[in-house]
Amino acid sequence: MALLVQKYGGTSVGSVERIKAVAQRLLKTRHGGHQLVVVVSAMSGETDRLLSLARGISAHPNGRELDVLLATGEQVTIALLCMALETLGCPARSYLASQVKISTDGTYNKARILSIDSGPIREALQAGKVVVVAGFQGVDVEGNITTLGRGGSDTTAVALAAALKAEECQIYTDVDGVYTTDPKIVPEARRLAQITYEEMLEMASLGAKVLQIRSVEFASKYGVPVRVLSSFAEGEGTLIKPEDDTMEQVLISGVTANRDEAKVTLVGVPDKPGIASAILGPIAQCNIEVDMIVQNIGSDGTTDFTFTVHRNDYQRTMEILKDVASQMNARQIEGDNRIAKISVIGVGMRSHAGIAVQMFGALAAEGINIRMISTSEIKISVVVDEKYLELAVRTLHCAFGLEREPQIS
Amino acid sequence: MALLVQKYGGTSVGSVERIKAVAQRLLKTRHGGHQLVVVVSAMSGETDRLLSLARGISAHPNGRELDVLLATGEQVTIALLCMALETLGCPARSYLASQVKISTDGTYNKARILSIDSGPIREALQAGKVVVVAGFQGVDVEGNITTLGRGGSDTTAVALAAALKAEECQIYTDVDGVYTTDPKIVPEARRLAQITYEEMLEMASLGAKVLQIRSVEFASKYGVPVRVLSSFAEGEGTLIKPEDDTMEQVLISGVTANRDEAKVTLVGVPDKPGIASAILGPIAQCNIEVDMIVQNIGSDGTTDFTFTVHRNDYQRTMEILKDVASQMNARQIEGDNRIAKISVIGVGMRSHAGIAVQMFGALAAEGINIRMISTSEIKISVVVDEKYLELAVRTLHCAFGLEREPQIS
Repeated sequence: MALLVQKYGGTSVGSVERIKAVAQRLLKTRHGGHQLVVVVSAMSGETDRLLSLARGISAHPNGRELDVLLATGEQVTIALLCMALETLGCPARSYLASQVKISTDGTYNKARILSIDSGPIREALQAGKVVVVAGFQGVDVEGNITTLGRGGSDTTAVALAAALKAEECQIYTDVDGVYTTDPKIVPEARRLAQITYEEMLEMASLGAKVLQIRSVEFASKYGVPVRVLSSFAEGEGTLIKPEDDTMEQVLISGVTANRDEAKVTLVGVPDKPGIASAILGPIAQCNIEVDMIVQNIGSDGTTDFTFTVHRNDYQRTMEILKDVASQMNARQIEGDNRIAKISVIGVGMRSHAGIAVQMFGALAAEGINIRMISTSEIKISVVVDEKYLELAVRTLHCAFGLEREPQIS
Repeated sequence: MALLVQKYGGTSVGSVERIKAVAQRLLKTRHGGHQLVVVVSAMSGETDRLLSLARGISAHPNGRELDVLLATGEQVTIALLCMALETLGCPARSYLASQVKISTDGTYNKARILSIDSGPIREALQAGKVVVVAGFQGVDVEGNITTLGRGGSDTTAVALAAALKAEECQIYTDVDGVYTTDPKIVPEARRLAQITYEEMLEMASLGAKVLQIRSVEFASKYGVPVRVLSSFAEGEGTLIKPEDDTMEQVLISGVTANRDEAKVTLVGVPDKPGIASAILGPIAQCNIEVDMIVQNIGSDGTTDFTFTVHRNDYQRTMEILKDVASQMNARQIEGDNRIAKISVIGVGMRSHAGIAVQMFGALAAEGINIRMISTSEIKISVVVDEKYLELAVRTLHCAFGLEREPQIS
C-alpha cells in the first residue's frame, strides 16, 4: 500500500462531469489499496472570471484581497470533488491551506511555502478518508490568505508529497507526459518514460509548459519523484526523478524551441574591462531579464556584445541601448526580434564529447545558419532565424535518433 | 464617533458597480467620523450558482462540503469590497469567519453562533481600517467551515454588533424599512420609524420578509438596536429596539397577511380528555407543523376541532385525518386551503382592551366572515376566505388609522 499525492489541473476538473470522472478514477486507485492525497486547481476559466471581477473594481487590486478572492477558486473544487467522492460511497475530506497550515511567507500573489503541518492529513488518512487539499493557496504567519502564483497547485502537490514522504507525486494534466519535442512540430516525437529534475528544469524553462518550474525545483530539493500523466487517457506518463546510472547512457532527452526572445548587438564597443556591466546595468535597472550573452573580441581592439531579452522587452531594450551606445562610442546597434532559440538537452552529454559538433553539423547540412551559441553542462542552445524553427527541431530530433526508444545496455 | 455595524445583502452587492457604490457610501459614513464594521452577503445569484454546481454532483451533497462550497460566495464579496475601498484610498481589511473566530456549533448548513473573538477587529479599527467580514459563515471547534442558513448574514451582523457593543446594527437591503402593511396592497402603507423586537418577530414570522427571524431573536436577546435601511435610497429606515414608554401609546403597528396556510376541521368528535393529542399526535409524527388551533364545545357532547397547517401539507394532513376520524368516530372531516390569515400587531394592545372588538367590527361592516380567531399578547389573527385578503388588510389598515403618523403625547 502506497501513499500517493495526485494533482488535477483546471481542465481536469473543468466541469461537474469531469469532477465526477476524477472521483471515479480516484476510487479505482483507492481500490488498488493506495492512500490518496489529492490537490486540485480551480475549475478552468474560474481564475480568469475572478480576475475579471477584480479588474472591474480596480486596475491594480490590493494584493492581500486579490489572494482572498482567488483562493475561492480552489475552495469550490475541493468541495465539489469531496461531494462526488462521498456520493460514490468513498469517505473524503476537504482541506483549505489554513486548515493544514500550508505556511508561506507574506508575499501576496507569489508566496513561497515554508512548512506544512501534515498531522491533520495523516489522521484523516488513518481514518480511511481520501484527503482533498486546495492547491495554489497558503496562509502566512498572521493567518492571512496567500497564493503561490499561476501554476502554484503543482508546488502545493510536491510540497505535500515531500511533507508526507509520499511514494510519488502524480501530476494529472491534459498531456500524457513529457515528450522528446513538440509533437505538433515532429509527429514522431516520443513520450519519455523518465527524465531527471535538471533536464525537466531546462525543458520547462525553454518552453515545454507541463509543470511549473518552481515545483520541479522543490521536487529536486526534497527528492520527490514526480510523474506527469494525462487525466483523460491511460498511460504511465513521464517520471521525473533523480539521476541514476541508466539515465547517463541516454545522450539527449529532448529538443526544445522558443520563439519568445529577441537578440540585440552592440557592434564595435571598445574592448576594455567593465563594458559588460556598463551595457547590462541600465537594462537590469528597467527590470528587463537577459538570457543568453555572447561577446566576440575582434582584432581591432573593439568587441561585439550580443544578448537576448524577451521579445516583449525588445523595443525598450533598443531604446535604452541608444544612450549606452553613444556614451561608449559603439559603432552601431543591431537588433532582431525574429529569432528562435533551439536547444538540445540531456544529462548524458556531460560524459560525452562531440554532441555540439554533431548538432552544428546537422544544422549546417540543412543550410541553417547559427547566429549565437550558448552551452551549459546538460544543454546546448543555438539562436537561428525564426523561419528555421521547425526545420531545426526536426533536423535535430532526427539527428539524435530521438524517435527511437533508447537502448539501455 | 460611533461604532456601527452595517450589513449589505446580495442585491446591494450584486455587481461590480453596486460594490463600488457601497464603497462610496461607506466612505461617506467614515468621513462622518464613524468606525465601520461591514458584513456582506454573496453577490446575488452566486449562492444559487454554487448550489446548482453541487446539485450537478449530487442530489444530496455532503453537508460539510456544501458549507465549504457556499462559504466562497461571501469570500468573493469581502475581497472585492475591500479592493474597492482601497482604490478609494480608504484602508480596509477583509476577514473570514475563521479569521475572527466566529465560532459555531457543528451543525452544517444551519449552525448557530456561539462566540466571536472581537480582538482582531478592534485592532484593525484602532489602526483606522474599515473592517469587512464575510457574513453567513462560521467555524466549528475543529476548524471546519459552517454556514448559518439562508439569511444568516443578518445574524452575523447582529452577533458582531453585540460582541463589539456597537451603537447600532444597520441592515441595508432593497426595501427602505418596515411598513405598516404591504404597500402593494395598501398604497397608503407607512414606513414605521421604530418597532419593538417582539413586533418585528410577529411581523417577520407572518410574512414581512425583511429580516431573518433568528437575527431578530439574537438582537432581542442582547439588546442590539437594529435599523433596516435601503442601500439604494436615502432615509432613516426603521429602528428595531427594546420597548419603551412612547411605544406603548401606539396601539397597532402593522397589519400582516399570509396565504400560506390551510384549515382542517374534525366535526363531531366525542368531547373527552385527550382528543387534542389524539388528533395532533399523528400530524406531528409526520413533521407537519400546526399553527392555529381552535376547539368549540357543542351542546350534544361532541366538539369540533379545527387547526391550520402549511398549505403544502394540506393533502397529507387530510389523508392522516381520515384514519384518525374513523378511529374516534368523528362525524366528518372538513378542509379548506383557500384561506388567508390576517393579523394586527402592536405592543400597545397589551394595555388596551377593545382592539379585538374594533377589529371584528370593521371586518363585519365589510361583510367579511371570520372563520377562526387566535390571539397572543401583542397580536390578534383571524382566518378569512382567501378572496377577502386584500379587502381585509385595507379595511383594518384604515380602521386603525395606520396611514397617519402616530400622535405621541
